[in-house]
Amino acid sequence: MKNIAVIGAGASGMMAAITAASAGASVTLYERNDQVGKKILQTGNGKCNFSNTVMNEDCFHGSARDTGLVKKVLERFDENKAVEFFESIGILPRVRYGGYYPFSEQASAIKDAMYLELIRRKVKLVLGHQVRNIQKKKNGFVVDDQFFDAVILSTGGKASPKSGSTGDGYYLAEKLGVHSNEALPALTYLTGTEKWFKNVAGVRVEASLKLMSDGKELDSSRGELQLTDQGISGICTFQLSAQAGRMLKEGHKVKVLLNFMPDMSFEEVVSFLNGRRSGLDSRKCSEFLIGVFPEKLCRVILQQADINIDASVKKLKDADVRRLAGCISFLAVNIKGTGGFDRCQVTSGGILADQLTDELEVKDVPGFFAVGEVVDCDGICGGYNLQWAWSSGYIAGMTASGK
Amino acid sequence: MKNIAVIGAGASGMMAAITAASAGASVTLYERNDQVGKKILQTGNGKCNFSNTVMNEDCFHGSARDTGLVKKVLERFDENKAVEFFESIGILPRVRYGGYYPFSEQASAIKDAMYLELIRRKVKLVLGHQVRNIQKKKNGFVVDDQFFDAVILSTGGKASPKSGSTGDGYYLAEKLGVHSNEALPALTYLTGTEKWFKNVAGVRVEASLKLMSDGKELDSSRGELQLTDQGISGICTFQLSAQAGRMLKEGHKVKVLLNFMPDMSFEEVVSFLNGRRSGLDSRKCSEFLIGVFPEKLCRVILQQADINIDASVKKLKDADVRRLAGCISFLAVNIKGTGGFDRCQVTSGGILADQLTDELEVKDVPGFFAVGEVVDCDGICGGYNLQWAWSSGYIAGMTASGK
Repeated sequence: MKNIAVIGAGASGMMAAITAASAGASVTLYERNDQVGKKILQTGNGKCNFSNTVMNEDCFHGSARDTGLVKKVLERFDENKAVEFFESIGILPRVRYGGYYPFSEQASAIKDAMYLELIRRKVKLVLGHQVRNIQKKKNGFVVDDQFFDAVILSTGGKASPKSGSTGDGYYLAEKLGVHSNEALPALTYLTGTEKWFKNVAGVRVEASLKLMSDGKELDSSRGELQLTDQGISGICTFQLSAQAGRMLKEGHKVKVLLNFMPDMSFEEVVSFLNGRRSGLDSRKCSEFLIGVFPEKLCRVILQQADINIDASVKKLKDADVRRLAGCISFLAVNIKGTGGFDRCQVTSGGILADQLTDELEVKDVPGFFAVGEVVDCDGICGGYNLQWAWSSGYIAGMTASGK
Repeated sequence: MKNIAVIGAGASGMMAAITAASAGASVTLYERNDQVGKKILQTGNGKCNFSNTVMNEDCFHGSARDTGLVKKVLERFDENKAVEFFESIGILPRVRYGGYYPFSEQASAIKDAMYLELIRRKVKLVLGHQVRNIQKKKNGFVVDDQFFDAVILSTGGKASPKSGSTGDGYYLAEKLGVHSNEALPALTYLTGTEKWFKNVAGVRVEASLKLMSDGKELDSSRGELQLTDQGISGICTFQLSAQAGRMLKEGHKVKVLLNFMPDMSFEEVVSFLNGRRSGLDSRKCSEFLIGVFPEKLCRVILQQADINIDASVKKLKDADVRRLAGCISFLAVNIKGTGGFDRCQVTSGGILADQLTDELEVKDVPGFFAVGEVVDCDGICGGYNLQWAWSSGYIAGMTASGK
């Protein structure tokens, strides 16, 4: 019987431990917190969006995606297998906007059901224990002072350090000669240099976003944009944040273009505004956009388009209307930074995937596996990072147990 | 030129005033608050769900519906005419789940745009003035001390008295011999006699509801049910509240049956539970429903089904499972009361529709019109009550002005 250590009882670690134990291994699961699955409770806004009906490698970034590892891992354990697993431990799934949630819509259900399964599978839980050292021995590993045939590293990355992930996984791996690139916050807000943000704080508005660098469009997203006193937030922003952060780190200039009427072309916005110009000609320019955008945003758009808000709508010239349409269709935000690790959902960067086999085993350190967020793999919002945790955890657990 | 008084500058009153003024009348709009449209700001959760793509008389209750008045009024001024009107005053519409909202998703846009239109149409606004008396004269009316050819009563009902509707419209009408039935709160929560509510306060869960009285199903609804420490709330509850309140008032017993798995029949729930019974037989009964319902609700359902939560799932008998399925598929709430006028969205009851012409004019008092919420007409959630305000306000405004 294989004797396996799993380091970190988050999503990927619990999955690895349950899988290995089900496959007949003797499993010890180390967790520095005094409970398992702490970060799971924060996922999906407390409801745990644990997978998605649309699942493919294009929803991920990082070397795990670039090397084709994500594709292979998802092929072997896809969203249907994840749902099947959760059903087997009592989680009835519910689909909302493509995302899988527990029917109870409580993240605690996922944590509790996995915990009960760990107990049922007789996984040895070592809570409140932070692993300090993993030593490679001839036929296995010594984790602190215990010998194991195999080790699965599932410490998570650096995101949300309060829930226990402070990046010690990279350090433990590095000591075994396993390298990581720099960890950066992902799925987080972006700050802009613009002074007008302080005037739109709190506004939520449907928009599409284009991430630009050096004149090229790198990515785009759409959804409810949240404007803060320092920049942009909301899921549509989160989706761009990993790439924005990495480009900034590499010294590039990064912009996001906001489009507040994403269903109209620029010329259609011009016509729309011209229609209003004749219909609402008794108004002042400050009242010109009432009913189109939230008040605070109207003021910023008019100001950015350099419109005299005290003048009559009658006085608007064609050039004014085109400038205004420009600020509606592509208002530029110069990105200054991203939210920190304490304000992000996941880590971009980590253990470089070219060191791993398709089974998540380190090629140069047989018996040593890396799964979940500690690997250089980050997914977009929508249950993708959890699916990566389930898939990689499952495959490593199965392989480590000798199946 | 007709000289018209409109009493109350809420949704229906502003619409009546704008319409009459556009049609050439001289209009005075009285409002007891120091601003117009105060209650509009609360509608649609602050976003103003101002109409709906699905609009017919079945979405309304009260004598206005029973006499066929709602149908005729909606035929003459339907949701498309309302949207057209709002577009003409600068409100770009946006549809969400069938409901029309201003594109800006701010209720203030509706209020502001209507206010600007009142000004543009030269409606005389008398703010901070509560009308105390309407006297019928030979060729018209004296409102307090001013003479008018016609009066449109748009005071609202009794819902949300803080925004100015305290029921004085019924009193003003009664003095002219125009009768109302008793006003009751509608679109509000329901309280239950059950002690277990205190254990589920704060839970939100998808459910279907059946309103029952004397063994008959009166109405049903479905949506996100909110459980409070005293009963049930959420839009699906609001939809049943007018009828529940009226039945209670008439001395009937009223029940609501909650179904927490509305997509499964009772027998399907039994099979589902039997499947779990074999899959999760290592668990205690307290853990049997993890992942299906929110924790607090699981406890109440198990308790109501008289399941020993400390026993093993293995010990569950067929009869236990059927009892449990019963509490999932039709948990009964004995309704004790409804929320009060300060906690409801609209008034059920008011000026009886059989006294009104199809133009909302009182048959026995020519020149006197009643529109909006003061009429015995209440719609379900979703922009219906506002549509009634626009439609009735428009028709009365047009008719009073002589068009």
